[in-house]
Amino acid sequence: MFAESLVGAAAAVAAHLESVLDEHDALPVVEAMGYATRGGKALRGYLVLESARLHGVPEGHAIWPACAIEAVHAYSLVHDDLPCMDDDDLRRGLPTVHRKWDEATAVLAGDALQALGFELVSDPRCHPSGEVRADLALSLARAAGARGMVKGQALDMAAERTDVPLDLAQITALQAGKTGALIRWSAEAGARLAEVDPAPLTAYADRLGLAFQIADDILDVEGDAAMMGKAVGKDAERGKATFVSLLGLDAAKLRAQQLVDEACDALSPYADRAENLRAAARFVISRSN
Amino acid sequence: MFAESLVGAAAAVAAHLESVLDEHDALPVVEAMGYATRGGKALRGYLVLESARLHGVPEGHAIWPACAIEAVHAYSLVHDDLPCMDDDDLRRGLPTVHRKWDEATAVLAGDALQALGFELVSDPRCHPSGEVRADLALSLARAAGARGMVKGQALDMAAERTDVPLDLAQITALQAGKTGALIRWSAEAGARLAEVDPAPLTAYADRLGLAFQIADDILDVEGDAAMMGKAVGKDAERGKATFVSLLGLDAAKLRAQQLVDEACDALSPYADRAENLRAAARFVISRSN
Repeated sequence: MFAESLVGAAAAVAAHLESVLDEHDALPVVEAMGYATRGGKALRGYLVLESARLHGVPEGHAIWPACAIEAVHAYSLVHDDLPCMDDDDLRRGLPTVHRKWDEATAVLAGDALQALGFELVSDPRCHPSGEVRADLALSLARAAGARGMVKGQALDMAAERTDVPLDLAQITALQAGKTGALIRWSAEAGARLAEVDPAPLTAYADRLGLAFQIADDILDVEGDAAMMGKAVGKDAERGKATFVSLLGLDAAKLRAQQLVDEACDALSPYADRAENLRAAARFVISRSN
Repeated sequence: MFAESLVGAAAAVAAHLESVLDEHDALPVVEAMGYATRGGKALRGYLVLESARLHGVPEGHAIWPACAIEAVHAYSLVHDDLPCMDDDDLRRGLPTVHRKWDEATAVLAGDALQALGFELVSDPRCHPSGEVRADLALSLARAAGARGMVKGQALDMAAERTDVPLDLAQITALQAGKTGALIRWSAEAGARLAEVDPAPLTAYADRLGLAFQIADDILDVEGDAAMMGKAVGKDAERGKATFVSLLGLDAAKLRAQQLVDEACDALSPYADRAENLRAAARFVISRSN
């Protein structure tokens, strides 16, 4: 049920992004934008669609912010993979954008994907009322910028350049920005579209985001490159502090499971209707268990 | 009168951006964001403030989109200067961001400046009504993305990699994206804030943008690096087609002057109240005459 639902959402997001990019000129940078958005699980887009569904917002509206967050997420991956950042050759099992094209195309495609995210989220078709409302754009800008995702990336970069490993509080703050901010925005989007209090979704998302990062750290130790579609073991190689290096493998797994339980509990106001979001939380750590 | 007005606008934009960045954590990436936004003429911000003034929109509201466009412009310069793009060491007479910090900081600072632009333009304080309206964000996203500025940059990049120089139509299309899109958005912003037809401002801005690019090409031939605060003569060195290489120096100067005249004429519905915008158009080519 959940698995089909996730695959269906990813297909809907991919098709919608495709149709949007079809309205662009056929340039290498546009081709690279499409390439960068394909092949992912679209977990963030799924969170948008599910939180919208919980609030009775039809998918025809929610697909716009769902695609927006996937465009912004894709931009962050394209820039993260650059030689001056994480210098990765593989992403989702395929060459990264700067390896398939070149660095300039990767910079521009990332830049344009960020702009596309804001274009989609500012589209009046986001809102059942057809209003041109900026609350989605405003919250997305805050989540993506130097107080959100970019802040987390900057803290990560600073950490890599020092010999003093981060402690648990620092790594948690880093994660809250780097991966947490967009996940929170995604889960809250449905409440924002319906103009209701997003508090239960915020509580859910913050725990989900942290569990997601812990699971990622576990996979960096236990996963293999073929399964992950990207290089693994890079953190340990770099002597980087992770939830696994700080907590140990068993305690990290336990913590991730606790967070998922808390995330699921936070959705109690939605009762059974939030089963898909609970399944999403369990899914996030399933690959690392 | 115009000169003081331009300097005053630049100071107002700088002070407002400073106060916004003061709300961020003191990280190198935030320092780099401030650095990248300082020292420019803030011509785009000036266009926003003047077009708002023409429509009776108080500066307290217009300062938000004025700062937004300067943040987006600054992001484009930071990324343009990267080694994989134009590889420039100097900008506004100072080391470029990747020279003063490093490439990763330049990528992140540019990314965060783009997000900041969308944050500012989505702020309800943009609008005298206090509404959270997305029309500014939507139009800015279109102007900045792969159908606007990034498209122009991508065409520019493609042109540099081929031995066939661009013709006049191609170089005009390139310019319309690369520098024209943000200039048009800036000039239209006041009409958008006031919810009136921007047509005269659009006509003004399209001519201004083209004149601006021709003047830039002239300065690349005739200017010196000290005056420009950046490297000159790079286009000729690279055998790149410019308005000067295609038209010749004298005809390029004449064409720029014609465009400025047409830009001024387009403002006739505003009569004398648009004198500052006319002076801005004359200013844009004055340095190349």
